[in-house]
Amino acid sequence: MSLDRRARAELARIVGAGHVRDQPGDLEPYARDATPAFRGAPDIVVWPRTAEEVGAILRLATRKHIPVVPRGAGSNLCAATAARDGGIVLVLTRMNRILEMNAEELLARAETGVPTTVLADAAAARGLLYPPDPGSRTVSTIGGNVATCAGGLRGLKYGVTRNYVLGLEAVLPTGEVIHTGGRLWKDVAGYDLTRLLTGSEGTLAVVTEVTVALLPMPAATNTGLAYFPTLAAAGRAVNAVIADGIVPATLEFLDAKCIGAVEEYARLGLRRDAGALLLFGDDGDAGTVEKHLSRISELCEANGAIEVTLAENAARSEALLTARRATLPALSRLGSMTILEDATVPRPRLAEMVDRIDEIAARYGLLIATFGHAGDGNLHPTCVVDQHDTAAIEAAHKAFADVFAAAIAMGGTITGEHGVGAAKLPFLTARLGADQVALLRRIKTAFDPAGILNPGKLGS
Amino acid sequence: MSLDRRARAELARIVGAGHVRDQPGDLEPYARDATPAFRGAPDIVVWPRTAEEVGAILRLATRKHIPVVPRGAGSNLCAATAARDGGIVLVLTRMNRILEMNAEELLARAETGVPTTVLADAAAARGLLYPPDPGSRTVSTIGGNVATCAGGLRGLKYGVTRNYVLGLEAVLPTGEVIHTGGRLWKDVAGYDLTRLLTGSEGTLAVVTEVTVALLPMPAATNTGLAYFPTLAAAGRAVNAVIADGIVPATLEFLDAKCIGAVEEYARLGLRRDAGALLLFGDDGDAGTVEKHLSRISELCEANGAIEVTLAENAARSEALLTARRATLPALSRLGSMTILEDATVPRPRLAEMVDRIDEIAARYGLLIATFGHAGDGNLHPTCVVDQHDTAAIEAAHKAFADVFAAAIAMGGTITGEHGVGAAKLPFLTARLGADQVALLRRIKTAFDPAGILNPGKLGS
Repeated sequence: MSLDRRARAELARIVGAGHVRDQPGDLEPYARDATPAFRGAPDIVVWPRTAEEVGAILRLATRKHIPVVPRGAGSNLCAATAARDGGIVLVLTRMNRILEMNAEELLARAETGVPTTVLADAAAARGLLYPPDPGSRTVSTIGGNVATCAGGLRGLKYGVTRNYVLGLEAVLPTGEVIHTGGRLWKDVAGYDLTRLLTGSEGTLAVVTEVTVALLPMPAATNTGLAYFPTLAAAGRAVNAVIADGIVPATLEFLDAKCIGAVEEYARLGLRRDAGALLLFGDDGDAGTVEKHLSRISELCEANGAIEVTLAENAARSEALLTARRATLPALSRLGSMTILEDATVPRPRLAEMVDRIDEIAARYGLLIATFGHAGDGNLHPTCVVDQHDTAAIEAAHKAFADVFAAAIAMGGTITGEHGVGAAKLPFLTARLGADQVALLRRIKTAFDPAGILNPGKLGS
Repeated sequence: MSLDRRARAELARIVGAGHVRDQPGDLEPYARDATPAFRGAPDIVVWPRTAEEVGAILRLATRKHIPVVPRGAGSNLCAATAARDGGIVLVLTRMNRILEMNAEELLARAETGVPTTVLADAAAARGLLYPPDPGSRTVSTIGGNVATCAGGLRGLKYGVTRNYVLGLEAVLPTGEVIHTGGRLWKDVAGYDLTRLLTGSEGTLAVVTEVTVALLPMPAATNTGLAYFPTLAAAGRAVNAVIADGIVPATLEFLDAKCIGAVEEYARLGLRRDAGALLLFGDDGDAGTVEKHLSRISELCEANGAIEVTLAENAARSEALLTARRATLPALSRLGSMTILEDATVPRPRLAEMVDRIDEIAARYGLLIATFGHAGDGNLHPTCVVDQHDTAAIEAAHKAFADVFAAAIAMGGTITGEHGVGAAKLPFLTARLGADQVALLRRIKTAFDPAGILNPGKLGS
């Protein structure tokens, strides 16, 4: 149903005329998120300030069958916030207050639009750690992190967003405000809606407030770097670390193509002759960190590392992590469009999977460089193409379909931490089976009888 | 609908005649679980061996509208497996094989009926830790732990069952077998059905296989004991430990009534003049454990502890934990019926909550002793009555209604780790609100259109 004049006026009444925009120039920035090659312009963009305003908007939308796409920073990589059917884009960035930072209870409560790093920095200022650290954390919002169940570099030791969400305030598509979970580590009163909403990509309800668990800030942290002749050797070193009983905070890898691109871009003095780079780090008591890093160094050497170095100080440690975080911008310089994916496989099959990706890239004549989280098998194969080369873009989409099929065949998944959105919905049945996809649709309907919330995404 | 002869014959055909029982003497053991004062006899008890058999049973039940109550060991404390409407009790203890113990991937895969300790011991034999340790773990099944999202003594540091469930095989009430999650730490393909089923108390699907995450076994573990004049002082010590940046594996408390009962029962040499006992423990690298326990001892002393001792060896450490685990059997000796609850409040309000419980007990003229998990605010107020004293039993139920109301008023919950079942369903709306309870019912219908699975429990 189209958005008529009465509906536009009603929206302006709910949030105030200054917080509604519907001119073409205003809509364009909200026609895309961080996902290349997906576009969908809304009819109107609305900035609510409270859960009550969100409720009023959703009631209107359900009554009039208007699509609503909730959006934080729009930094997702799966077209989860593209307005494929037009309608309302509901931007939640005005709801950006930290409501509570509680060191005694080890938790924080924040409105949905607080940027992830703002929340993490406020926690750090009180000696507390918010562990999830997705790559987009400087721009992403905590509500967006909940919507996608965002991951990051510390997944193996610390888990992902769902491991830290204690409670949510959320507005149902029919307008009711519910409070799931709360302030407790243990609470089994009712179905686990807190976790069901985490990762539901704005298709079941609009999250307006988040309560997250925090940890005491570790006393020490350090980082090391190991070069290997091949990614297979790096994979063996990772397996040896786990077998030795160490679950470090960071275990990241770059393939040779990524090493080259990062060195071109950032001039960190990385070795260009290595087949793979492993970045490892841990945090905790100073003695434990030193012991773990020294043991990891030994295990890298025992598994064929060409060179292993530990950061001599905090600045160098930060520089090494920056190298890892610079991978995506470094690759972006190689072409005008980068398509970043996150197929994931069981950890011991990481090197095998990268070989498969390289074979697939060669078959389609594409440049795909791969980096990612070696600790949890979460790969980021990244294809660099010319944005005007439609044949290459089409080849890239075909290549990724093959990559997803290979990941599933290895007991893996089509998305570890980015989400399904519009981009990976076509691959969901291959991962979950038709019976489970049908069940997801019935769950979607239990929340959203009119089907207004983020249509064409999960649950559609 | 009653269970006719044709349905009984069909059940015998599905699982084999030797795995169906319907004589009164056979049914009686399945008319109760570990919850006192709740009873509900089934018409028939069935022991399936495979997910396919479970699927055939559920299809029959959905077609004929026969209630089905899935059951592991029946050790739950919320009448989650009482067959309130008769029908079929589906006992899953024949599905008891450990299918995989994988040290490389840090995971185990087991059929639903494997006892929790059998799984944990098999992991330990490979140098791996399965952290959740519910009080019933020697008899409970892993599938039952998933159904209730079981907790235990290590909740604050390690989390509860949901933090370790990676994937499930489950059978829908309409007979389809689905596989949720898998072998990965990071997987966001679809709604989080793994966590939605965890804690759903057998009302949405029958879990037939579980994949759990494991950790490397910590190198060292130790335990200490502190006596305090009051529970308030013990609570202050707990807060001081957290504020100091230590999140220990174990932080358990007993009130004076529990100390007395345990000492009468087990003669461990506990002090009878203390108002509260705090049991603390940690695991990890030997140096870290020693440092943490020494610091916790200091903080207990600084907060008024009468006496603090550390276990001098592993045997003594185990004996102290046994004292904690003996609390329930010790209290059971004081009367013929013990009603054990698990109201939970934010950690800093623990002592205040125990005061409220004592006031409520006095008002109703009841003996309620309280012990529990100080680290996560999870209390176990336990009422001891004569099983023939119906007035006292009624008073106990009224008293617990007041306890739940007090917990909710403090930002807590009606159940931290035991579950809702039939026992706490009347209190669920007070905790979640009518809108959320209505949503739970719609989710229930999305899974179970005929309403056959564990009726009268969550989602009803």
